[in-house]
Amino acid sequence: MIKNLAIDSTLDLSFQRQVEVSKELIWRAWTEPELIKIWFCPRPWKTIACEVDLHAGGVFKTTMQSPEGVLVPNEGCFLDVQKNKQLVWTNALLPGFRPNQATSLDVDAANFFFTATIHLEDHLGGTTYTALVRHADQKACDMHKAMGFEQGWGIALDQLIELVRQGI
Amino acid sequence: MIKNLAIDSTLDLSFQRQVEVSKELIWRAWTEPELIKIWFCPRPWKTIACEVDLHAGGVFKTTMQSPEGVLVPNEGCFLDVQKNKQLVWTNALLPGFRPNQATSLDVDAANFFFTATIHLEDHLGGTTYTALVRHADQKACDMHKAMGFEQGWGIALDQLIELVRQGI
Repeated sequence: MIKNLAIDSTLDLSFQRQVEVSKELIWRAWTEPELIKIWFCPRPWKTIACEVDLHAGGVFKTTMQSPEGVLVPNEGCFLDVQKNKQLVWTNALLPGFRPNQATSLDVDAANFFFTATIHLEDHLGGTTYTALVRHADQKACDMHKAMGFEQGWGIALDQLIELVRQGI
Repeated sequence: MIKNLAIDSTLDLSFQRQVEVSKELIWRAWTEPELIKIWFCPRPWKTIACEVDLHAGGVFKTTMQSPEGVLVPNEGCFLDVQKNKQLVWTNALLPGFRPNQATSLDVDAANFFFTATIHLEDHLGGTTYTALVRHADQKACDMHKAMGFEQGWGIALDQLIELVRQGI
């Protein structure tokens, strides 16, 4: 476990899986908007828009749509971009590293700030895929867990793998 | 004006000065804790402690002390470290890029998140020194301005120059 993946069990959520697709294809699926739109949120939700400016401080914005048609935009920026290896972004900062507005939102929404790390390592012809999500406090972490973090991110990863295997 | 120094006049505070000291010495004054403690806050306030881990995601923490002895800690992390050229940090994220707790603080304090950029360019044997501070909303920006941003950062810069001229 490398230093920047150290986990605080009261504040962080994570999961790790060995997958049979290459780092390079996972990286493309995570960084190309047209691919992200296909796999990023568990169906029947859809990702109907995606913006990526792939450098530290650049925009990472997705707009999800519920089955009932409710739009859920989520805007943030990248913090660390290491091609085929590690991608870090947060929704606590907007593009250009500008702080996001916590206090204009309701408390639960403000608590939903997180910083996510996707880390990729070669493993037996495939990849060890690690997702780590850091929160400000235990309440935010517990809320994210109760929303089905592990299942949701797991299903999304299954969708990513399915997409990659179909050929991208 | 380079792209990452674009200013939104309702959300950002900035000032720029030509100073007769080198980029290299300004960089040292901004990144070595023992130097930061000498110049960082306008006297008679003191900076009594400082932690620096000079890479993106690394800690930048200062503890200021008022003339009455009240301690004001401010913890954040670096976002962009380009030696002798540009230093960006925020207090909206803690070390390791973890979101800071906005909602556990009172509204005014939560509104005080900012991202600061110090940009240095050679100018006639000295340096063009630009400070840019980005806020989440106009209220935070106005509050920072009312607290005396420009005077405070200007006095601190005077103290930095005084220190560098004495020899570091």
